[in-house]
Amino acid sequence: MTDLLPHHDGSPLHVSDDAPALGDVVRVRLRVPDGYGPLVAVRTRSNPDHEPEWTDAERIGAADGWEWWEAPVTVRNPRHGYRFLLQHADGRVEWLNQTGIHRLETLDAEDFALVAEAAPPAWLHGSVMYQVFPDRFARSAQADLHPTPDWAIPAEWDTPVDPVMPGRAQQFYGGDLPGVVEHLDHLVELGVNLLYLTPVFPAASNHRYDASSFLRIDPLLGGDEAYARLIDEAHARGIRVIGDLTSNHSGDRHEWFRAAFGHPGAPEEEFYYFTDEDNTEYECWLGARSLPKFDWASDELRERFITGEDSAVAHWLKPPYGADGWRVDVANMTGRLGAIDLNADVRRLLRDTVRGINPEAILLGESTNDATSDLQGDGWDGAMTYPSFTRPVWAWLSEPNGAPYLDAEGEERTESWFFGMQIGGIPRYTARDFVDSMTRFTGGIPWRVRLGNMQPLDTHDTARFATNAAPGTVPVAVGLSMTLPGLPVVFAGDEFGLTGVDGESSRTPIPWGSEDRPETAERIALYRDLVGIRRAHPVLGAGGLRWLHVDDECVVFVRESAAETVLVLAARGDADVALPPRALAGAAGAAALFGDATLAVADDGAVALAADGPVFAAWALPGVAAPDAR
Amino acid sequence: MTDLLPHHDGSPLHVSDDAPALGDVVRVRLRVPDGYGPLVAVRTRSNPDHEPEWTDAERIGAADGWEWWEAPVTVRNPRHGYRFLLQHADGRVEWLNQTGIHRLETLDAEDFALVAEAAPPAWLHGSVMYQVFPDRFARSAQADLHPTPDWAIPAEWDTPVDPVMPGRAQQFYGGDLPGVVEHLDHLVELGVNLLYLTPVFPAASNHRYDASSFLRIDPLLGGDEAYARLIDEAHARGIRVIGDLTSNHSGDRHEWFRAAFGHPGAPEEEFYYFTDEDNTEYECWLGARSLPKFDWASDELRERFITGEDSAVAHWLKPPYGADGWRVDVANMTGRLGAIDLNADVRRLLRDTVRGINPEAILLGESTNDATSDLQGDGWDGAMTYPSFTRPVWAWLSEPNGAPYLDAEGEERTESWFFGMQIGGIPRYTARDFVDSMTRFTGGIPWRVRLGNMQPLDTHDTARFATNAAPGTVPVAVGLSMTLPGLPVVFAGDEFGLTGVDGESSRTPIPWGSEDRPETAERIALYRDLVGIRRAHPVLGAGGLRWLHVDDECVVFVRESAAETVLVLAARGDADVALPPRALAGAAGAAALFGDATLAVADDGAVALAADGPVFAAWALPGVAAPDAR
Repeated sequence: MTDLLPHHDGSPLHVSDDAPALGDVVRVRLRVPDGYGPLVAVRTRSNPDHEPEWTDAERIGAADGWEWWEAPVTVRNPRHGYRFLLQHADGRVEWLNQTGIHRLETLDAEDFALVAEAAPPAWLHGSVMYQVFPDRFARSAQADLHPTPDWAIPAEWDTPVDPVMPGRAQQFYGGDLPGVVEHLDHLVELGVNLLYLTPVFPAASNHRYDASSFLRIDPLLGGDEAYARLIDEAHARGIRVIGDLTSNHSGDRHEWFRAAFGHPGAPEEEFYYFTDEDNTEYECWLGARSLPKFDWASDELRERFITGEDSAVAHWLKPPYGADGWRVDVANMTGRLGAIDLNADVRRLLRDTVRGINPEAILLGESTNDATSDLQGDGWDGAMTYPSFTRPVWAWLSEPNGAPYLDAEGEERTESWFFGMQIGGIPRYTARDFVDSMTRFTGGIPWRVRLGNMQPLDTHDTARFATNAAPGTVPVAVGLSMTLPGLPVVFAGDEFGLTGVDGESSRTPIPWGSEDRPETAERIALYRDLVGIRRAHPVLGAGGLRWLHVDDECVVFVRESAAETVLVLAARGDADVALPPRALAGAAGAAALFGDATLAVADDGAVALAADGPVFAAWALPGVAAPDAR
Repeated sequence: MTDLLPHHDGSPLHVSDDAPALGDVVRVRLRVPDGYGPLVAVRTRSNPDHEPEWTDAERIGAADGWEWWEAPVTVRNPRHGYRFLLQHADGRVEWLNQTGIHRLETLDAEDFALVAEAAPPAWLHGSVMYQVFPDRFARSAQADLHPTPDWAIPAEWDTPVDPVMPGRAQQFYGGDLPGVVEHLDHLVELGVNLLYLTPVFPAASNHRYDASSFLRIDPLLGGDEAYARLIDEAHARGIRVIGDLTSNHSGDRHEWFRAAFGHPGAPEEEFYYFTDEDNTEYECWLGARSLPKFDWASDELRERFITGEDSAVAHWLKPPYGADGWRVDVANMTGRLGAIDLNADVRRLLRDTVRGINPEAILLGESTNDATSDLQGDGWDGAMTYPSFTRPVWAWLSEPNGAPYLDAEGEERTESWFFGMQIGGIPRYTARDFVDSMTRFTGGIPWRVRLGNMQPLDTHDTARFATNAAPGTVPVAVGLSMTLPGLPVVFAGDEFGLTGVDGESSRTPIPWGSEDRPETAERIALYRDLVGIRRAHPVLGAGGLRWLHVDDECVVFVRESAAETVLVLAARGDADVALPPRALAGAAGAAALFGDATLAVADDGAVALAADGPVFAAWALPGVAAPDAR
C-alpha cells in the first residue's frame, strides 16, 4: 500500500479546537492529494442526538501537492461524531472516517469524534511514563528495619522470581519508596518524566492490589512520609507521579471490609455485595476471596472513595502529597456485575473529582482488552489497554522459543504467554496486520482519548516483550512505542534487557549495578535515545498520524504538525520502499534522528527508503504547509 | 466468493436457547466444513462485566460434510457477547463473529450476542407487515360527513400529490379507518398479517405526527369507535395491528403543550424544554415549531405517556382496543438533547410497560440510520431502519432516471432522492457491496433483535423503490425483503406498482379499482406469491442465514433450520453459479418455490444454478442434519 489518500485526523493541522465546549463551532480540514479527484463537493456528516446533520466544506487552498478543504462542525453532543463525504465528478462517493476511506456507508462508531468534556492536561501528551512495581524496584537500607510481615515469604534481591502460588503473591523482596528515590536520577538519565507506581497501600501480597487501607502508605514501603518525599523529589526533577487505585475491589483485610464482614448492619456493608445474611459470603474479583468487589450503588462508598474531602481519591492528590493523578485498576469491571452497570457513573465521578482537585491531574483506566466502549471521553483520559498496540506489536515482532515454564498452578507451559488469551501462544502478524489491528482498536476511540492511551511493550501483568522478541526487533518495538500516537511506557527493567515469561516472571528485581555491562549499557542507551526523540519532538505527542507505506514486512508513517514532521520507517525484514512524489513534501530537508537507513530524494520528489532489517529509523522534516485559517 | 466457511448464527440450529435468563447456560454450536481444519481446539470467548471468559467446545459429531462443535456459554450480562476461536493444527488462529471469519483479534461490538431481557413474542417472526398511511389508503362514504378541518387543503382522490409546502403537510385526501376496514380483505389476499398504521391521533397535518392528543382517535378518521372496530375486524382475519406514537415530541396543538405554552407554572411545563421565562420558546424537532420536544426527565410525563394506568402507551393496548404494539417515531432522537441522553431509560420503560400490559405486544423503534447502539435488546424489539437492508438494496438494484422533481421548498431536483443523504443521488453498489453493507450494519446487533428489524423497500418517508428500480428488479428486491432475516414490510401501494420520487410523492392515494389491470394484477400476484412463500416457510422468519456465493452481480444464500432449508438466488445480471459439493447437502431434494432458474446437482453433490437476470429464485430443501444435543 503506497497510494496517496485523502487525510484527516484529530490533530491541530486538521481540527481547529480539540477542547471545544458544547455549541462551539470547530473547523475541520480534509487534505486531498492533487489528482485524486476531481471532487465536486466535500461535506461533513455529523449525527447530533442520533439524527444526521450535514455541512459543506470549502476548498480553501493548496500547498505542496495537497488541496485543503474546510468545513464548520457545531459540537452538539459531548461526544460529537463526524465523517467526511467526498463526492467525485464522476458520481462516485467516498467516506472518510477513523478507519480510513470507504466506498460503502460507514458505522457511526467509527466516526471521527470531538469531545466536549473536561480535557486532559496538555502535559500528558509530552510525557513518557516509567512504570515501577515497588516490591521489585529498589530496596533502601531502611527496608532492613522492618520486620517481615505475616503473609510474606522473604526473598533475597537476586533470588529468582517464583511464579507458582503461593510464592507468586507472597514472595517478598522488600523494595521500598526510599529505594525509588535513590534511583530517580536513573529516570532522569532515561528521560522519562511520568512515574507510575503500582499500589503502595498496605496489603497482604507483594503486588498490593488487595489494599487494607486507601488512606495510608504501607509502612514496609516507608509510609506516608516516604511517599510525600518521593513525590517532592520526583517533582524537583521534572517527573510527575501517579498512583494506582482499585475502584473494583478492596482487599479482604481492608478496614471497610473488616467493619462489614460478619457484621450485618454495619455502615460499610453496603460497600460490598454480601450474598448471605451473615455478611460472610460476597462477590469478589474473578472468584478471589481476598478481593471483595465494591457496590457502587452506595452513596456512602462514593463519598468515602471519591467525592469526600479526604476520600481515597482526594487524599493523595492534595498536599502534602500532590500526586499528579491515578491509574485505576480493573477500570473495565468497575461497577459492573451481571445486570448492573454503574461504570459510566463511577468513571465520570472519578474524573470530575480528580479534575476538581487539580485541573492538571490525569485519570487513566485499566482496560486490557477492547476498551472502545469505555473510552469515549467521558471519564478516562486514556487506558492501559493492549489490543491497540501491545498485542499487535508482539504478534508482528515475536519469535517464540517454546521454552517450558510454570504457571500459577505449577503446570508446565510451552505455549508462550499471550495476555491470558487461550489461543495457543503468540499469533503471527505481518506488518500489515499490525497496522490493521491498530486501526481496528483505535477506530472507535476519539483522537484526544487515543493520545492518552498507554502504549507499553509490557507491564507488571504481562511477560516481557524481549523474552520472545525476534532477533534485532527490540529497537523496532521501542521505537514504535515512542513514535506512534499514545503515551509511551517503559516498564522498569526493560531498559536492563530483562526478560520474563509471564506476568509474574516479569516482576524481576532490577539488577542495579549492572548498568555498565556492555549489553545493558547498550540497551539503556537505546531507551535514552528513543525517549529523547519523543521528548525533543512535540509532534510525537499530539501531531497527526499518516501512513505512507505498509506491506508485510515494513511500515512507514509520519507524525505531522505545522511546526515539524517526523518520518518513521520500521521493519522486521529488509526495507526497500519507494514513496510517490507528493507523499512527503519536505523530504529534501530530512535530518536523520535514529537508525541505520538511507533516505534518497529523486528530482521529482519521490523518496526511496532502504535498510537492512530489522530496522527502526526516524528523520526530522519541516512542518506541513497549510493554507491560512478562514 | 464460494468458499465454504465455518458457520454460526443466533438461530435454533446453533443456539440452544434464544431467550435465556441471566445465569442460564446456553449451548452454542459451530459448524466446520470437512477439510477446513484440522482444528486442534474450538473455544468461545465471552466478556462478562468486560473481562474475558473462555469455554472449550467439544466436537460432538458430523453430518452431511460438516463437523459440529458445541460449547457452554453462561449468560452473565443482559447482552452477553461471545465469539468463537478456531485453533488450527498448524498454529493458525481464527475468530468467528457476526461479521465473519477473521485472522486478527476482533472488536467486542461485533460479537454474537445472547439477550437476557424480555423476549419479543414469537409471532413477530411469523409476520409480514403492511404499512398504511391513513389519509391516503381508502376513503369510506362516512368521510363525506366530516367538515374539512381549518388547516386542510382538500384534494380529490385522484389529484396528484403536491410535494411542495404547504400542500406537502396540508393536502388532505380524507382517507379514514372505515376505509381501511373496507379493504382488509385485500390484505388477506396479499397474505400480510401485521397492519402498521402511521398516526391516527387528531392533528393539524395530513401525516398526523403532530398529535393534539394521544388519547383520542382523530374524528376525521372515524374516531375511537372506528379504531376499535378496525382492530376487531383485523383480528378476525388473523391480522395484528400496531399504532405509531411520537415519543420525541407532540404537536403544538397538543393538550399538554397548550396547557404549558405561555403558562409558566403549569404542571405540563416540565414535559417540554421551554427556554424562556414566558414558556413561549422551546426545543423542537429539527427546528419545526409545530413539534415541541419532550423532556423525559419529567416523572409526570413518564406517568402520563408511559407508565400510568391510562397512559398514551397503555390506552390503546387495553380493551376495547387491544392493539398489538407500537412503532415509535423518531425513537433515535427520543430523550436526546445535547448533553442529555435519557434514551435508554425511555426505551426500557416503554418496553417494560408494553410487555407488562400484554406480553404478546411488540415495540419497534424508528432509527433510520445506524441503529446499532440502540438495538442491543434492552428496549426495541426491532427498528424501522434503512442502512442494513433498504439503502443497500436500492444502491444495488436502482437505475436512476434523473427526471426532475420538486422538493419541499419547491426547488427543482434532478439527483434521485436517497434518504435525505447529501451524497448526490443513489450510490452504485454491486451485489458484493449489498452483502457487505448488510453485514456491516447488522454485525453489531444481536441476532434476536435483527430478526425484528423492519425490512421495507420503501415507507411513507422515502421515495418508492419502483421509481428508480432497474428493469426487472422489483421481484428481486421484494424477494430479498421476504427471504432475508428481518420483518418484511409492504408499504401500501407498492403492490399496485406505484412510484413516487420522494417521501411525499410516495404518499399516493391507493388506486382502488385498478387491481384488474394486467400490470397491476401481475404486481399484486408477485407480492401475494412472495408473501406466501414467507408465510409458508417458518425458516424464513427465525432460521439461520448462510451465504453460499456472492459476486458483483449475484448472491446465493440459505435460510436453515432442522425442519427445512430455503435456498435463494438473487441477481441483477445473468447468474451462473457453481457451488462446491458440500455447500448444500439436500440439493437433490430441492423443490422450486419461485423464479425462472435451473438447479442441477452433479454426482459429487456440486450444485449449478443458472438463470437469465434479473432473477429472484427460491427452492425448498430438507432441513439441516445435526448431531443430537449433548
